Amino acid sequence: MDESFFQCIPNVSEGRRTEVVAAFVEAIRDVPGAHLLDYSSDRDHHRSVFTLVGKALPLRKAILAMYEVAGRHLNLARHSGAHPRIGAVDVVPFVPLHNTPMQAACALALEVAQAVTERFEVPIYLYEECARIPERRSLAWLRRGGLEALEAEISTPLRRPDLGPARLHPLLGASVIGARKPLLAFNVLLDTEDVEVARAIAHRVRERGGGLSNLRALGIFLAERGRAQVSMNLVDPERTPWYLALEMVRMEARRFGTRILSTEVIGMPPLSVVAEAAAYYMQWEGFSLDRILEHHLLRIARDEALDGVAARAPGQEWPGNQDPGQKEEA
Amino acid sequence: MDESFFQCIPNVSEGRRTEVVAAFVEAIRDVPGAHLLDYSSDRDHHRSVFTLVGKALPLRKAILAMYEVAGRHLNLARHSGAHPRIGAVDVVPFVPLHNTPMQAACALALEVAQAVTERFEVPIYLYEECARIPERRSLAWLRRGGLEALEAEISTPLRRPDLGPARLHPLLGASVIGARKPLLAFNVLLDTEDVEVARAIAHRVRERGGGLSNLRALGIFLAERGRAQVSMNLVDPERTPWYLALEMVRMEARRFGTRILSTEVIGMPPLSVVAEAAAYYMQWEGFSLDRILEHHLLRIARDEALDGVAARAPGQEWPGNQDPGQKEEA
Repeated sequence: MDESFFQCIPNVSEGRRTEVVAAFVEAIRDVPGAHLLDYSSDRDHHRSVFTLVGKALPLRKAILAMYEVAGRHLNLARHSGAHPRIGAVDVVPFVPLHNTPMQAACALALEVAQAVTERFEVPIYLYEECARIPERRSLAWLRRGGLEALEAEISTPLRRPDLGPARLHPLLGASVIGARKPLLAFNVLLDTEDVEVARAIAHRVRERGGGLSNLRALGIFLAERGRAQVSMNLVDPERTPWYLALEMVRMEARRFGTRILSTEVIGMPPLSVVAEAAAYYMQWEGFSLDRILEHHLLRIARDEALDGVAARAPGQEWPGNQDPGQKEEA
Repeated sequence: MDESFFQCIPNVSEGRRTEVVAAFVEAIRDVPGAHLLDYSSDRDHHRSVFTLVGKALPLRKAILAMYEVAGRHLNLARHSGAHPRIGAVDVVPFVPLHNTPMQAACALALEVAQAVTERFEVPIYLYEECARIPERRSLAWLRRGGLEALEAEISTPLRRPDLGPARLHPLLGASVIGARKPLLAFNVLLDTEDVEVARAIAHRVRERGGGLSNLRALGIFLAERGRAQVSMNLVDPERTPWYLALEMVRMEARRFGTRILSTEVIGMPPLSVVAEAAAYYMQWEGFSLDRILEHHLLRIARDEALDGVAARAPGQEWPGNQDPGQKEEA
């Protein structure tokens, strides 16, 4: 019985036409077992981010359905936006959930990548945990120079795709597909209008500046709030905890006589990250995830769902997922 | 399809004989669908606390099985311990989980109470949300004077049982059964040996002393740590948050020149309580439980478990629960 369960966070280069975003949402919702938890669009970045969870087969179907929608509605050659991108379906990361091993997420990413190139002839780069060349672990490295630079260099040894043709798809460009650990994206709003303060703090706290490992940070000005913000990614929040990043920003903010107004979390943090922060501030001795009720309820509910499957007569369909090929999944 | 799901935290007057505690554990584990998440015994209090979760029918079976074990092994007349008690199976609280209404927990408590009196002739008091007389909401009121006072007063109008005979069971005494909101029990260890400091802080922070509503607190000396402790119960942590209790203890501790060494949580706090504390300290703007991944995973896993049931042929058993009477449950 396959228990593998994943999160998938496809990033699409469309954040302005609501009817196109709606078409993506509809395509995902048409796939039983692909649960769309959240999606958000940004007009300035001209980009939408979807959060899906499910088993391998429904996620693969949902991603292929998104490429179909992209093929009907998007034309990357005519796309403009603040965010760097090289594809209509720009990045597709898979994150293993529950006890699913990273290996299974990589196998799924590769399978999806193969299906995409076969059906749509889009060139694919494998990134993060699935990268075949060390540099390609980094999304920033893969996207440097954007679509324009990639078009010029795609047939060079350095930038030849991992799968598919060594030429951009005329409408869809290229795609970056891979697997990674859960990432925590959060922003700290400062009580200052001075973006240089945010930049100085970001520089000090991030790994590249000699600060916290696994922390990436930028200082930006948030027009709608009239305040500067430190925008951060914790790429391995199990090793480098959330609260530590906040406290380092607080420490550095003191130097500039400013303080933290509030924070914002992008996407859906896992219970482990949230509980670790609570345990730190509550000085909770003997804390572990096992101490939280829902951690057990989730295990019980999953066991019951699996029992339900095990109890089916052979050949009977898993409700909500009509494809009998499910057991082929890694 | 019955979705009702409960936590049940039976308190038993036996904390010294490990083989008797093991007999309780075995009796619970023999009931499919009654999930024992945790249990702990205290020698000084001579008391054990079990944490179960499940649907109505398996929980009812598990509690009845515990009374059978108690009848075989316990004799309350020969029991001694620091903790106030009036029964071998002293208190049986049911807490509704997921979207289960409190009403359903009260219906289950009443059903269990009736089954217990019918089978074992134990007098029962209904407490908290199930109390039929306002005073009986309070466990402390029901247990005041302990078994000895109750024996003398059990046939008086004030203390006549809600169900069962107006006399104590010779071995099992009486029982308090009811339903309540989730309760958070946590202890704050202070950096002082002076129990009077802990008592003064407890007095100031608790509802009865003019402090936080829904907070009960005691100051005690913790022999094994050589430090004083503020021992607290938050009886409605959704209204009076966890972090507020901690911060009030911290504030009052300053007055005595002492500080918080660590805290300890008894039992299993729900995600909502833990996440609220994280959101406060992280200054997380726009926080809600919907923002946490596992909140959705739990819903999805439960939906899949329910789908599994819905897809069964009529008359087929729910796996892991062999009793076809499940649908009778409230």
